[in-house]
Amino acid sequence: MLSRSQIKLVKQLELKKYRSREGLFVAEGPKVVGDLLKSGFLPHSLFATPEFRCGEEAQTVSHDELCKLSFLQHPQQVLALFPLPPVTCPSPSGLSIALDGVQDPGNLGTIIRIADWFGIDTIYCSHNTADAWAPKVIQATMGSIARVKVVYTDLTVLLSETALPVYGTLLDGDDIYRQQLSREGIIVMGNEGNGISEPVRHLVSHRLQIPSFHRGDRAESLNVAIATAITCSEFRRR
Amino acid sequence: MLSRSQIKLVKQLELKKYRSREGLFVAEGPKVVGDLLKSGFLPHSLFATPEFRCGEEAQTVSHDELCKLSFLQHPQQVLALFPLPPVTCPSPSGLSIALDGVQDPGNLGTIIRIADWFGIDTIYCSHNTADAWAPKVIQATMGSIARVKVVYTDLTVLLSETALPVYGTLLDGDDIYRQQLSREGIIVMGNEGNGISEPVRHLVSHRLQIPSFHRGDRAESLNVAIATAITCSEFRRR
Repeated sequence: MLSRSQIKLVKQLELKKYRSREGLFVAEGPKVVGDLLKSGFLPHSLFATPEFRCGEEAQTVSHDELCKLSFLQHPQQVLALFPLPPVTCPSPSGLSIALDGVQDPGNLGTIIRIADWFGIDTIYCSHNTADAWAPKVIQATMGSIARVKVVYTDLTVLLSETALPVYGTLLDGDDIYRQQLSREGIIVMGNEGNGISEPVRHLVSHRLQIPSFHRGDRAESLNVAIATAITCSEFRRR
Repeated sequence: MLSRSQIKLVKQLELKKYRSREGLFVAEGPKVVGDLLKSGFLPHSLFATPEFRCGEEAQTVSHDELCKLSFLQHPQQVLALFPLPPVTCPSPSGLSIALDGVQDPGNLGTIIRIADWFGIDTIYCSHNTADAWAPKVIQATMGSIARVKVVYTDLTVLLSETALPVYGTLLDGDDIYRQQLSREGIIVMGNEGNGISEPVRHLVSHRLQIPSFHRGDRAESLNVAIATAITCSEFRRR
């Protein structure tokens, strides 16, 4: 039996202030929870229907009880609470991504998944970027949150202190397909509506642009997750 | 004043059966509605707050009335009904995309936007692909639905009749970064969970794979819209 206080705790974790207060985040479904367990995340609590098996101690719940806890339209087998990982900000090395004000949880989750695919270990987020530990983001990562380190930091400090090249996609940048791209560096991606903020833009050493192939004089844009994918693909294919 | 029957009509258009019956689809916001008008779509009706100007005759509504019609969390200035464009299936030429069972409206909308960016005029959809005229898809295209032709057809017939190369991204395909890619062809993208269906897979003449750069033996996948973007980028950059 679920207690009222358990349901209340889980539901509160939708909000960042409660995640910070409790030091916990929510993950759901066998894929996401399984990936976190495999990566060494130790669960604070596991609520699981009898079908779910993982070797960890779980509180067995019915599907109806799981629905009471879940943030998903179609809850699946398990919901787990994990402690938020400790906040440490590694120095940039290899290839990494910096997000400057990305707002949409789905975009953030997709970008974490892209980083995982392209073997990028760390994503640096400005403080005004969406919170990676929100349930919507965790689910959108499809488990990649277990393998990619996401840290919140002042990007202007990070980028002014690094010796690595800083790449940014900008409307007036140089054709990405024709540029030399190094194996190390930081790729900065900006906010959905406004792009990279003024102070961060000043710290971009290599301005890139993904050229459009549409006809006519339309001023269209690519979704930030799509632009991130194309940019990462260009860096990695070479 | 909005009439009850107007509100009912708009709300019904969320469902395909009513879109088919009425021959109408819904578009919202100055960007999407504006792009459709610019592309020559003639509105059946326009409901607009006084801020919206477009040269077309509109029924002026208050923001509260607009909210009653809208499918968006934050309705903006205008909601329009347009006649569904006539169903004609052009023969493939140049580069086009074929979607085999893409289910998520957000993915479909994003793919239409990607096609627009990369100058791809036509998307062929299998009959079990999500409906492009659903409000969620229209909004996710950010106006690109005005410029990209989306047609529903039997892909096995289309692909078996074409003389163009048929490209498909498959788990056991050849590294896309190292393949010759022609300027003409059809790029097939599959369902979110199951990929390209068996009968369509047999018609793929060039099997491609986007290599992953992550370490370890994870069997991860890319979101279908992300994979479409990377594939289109590879075709166009050459």
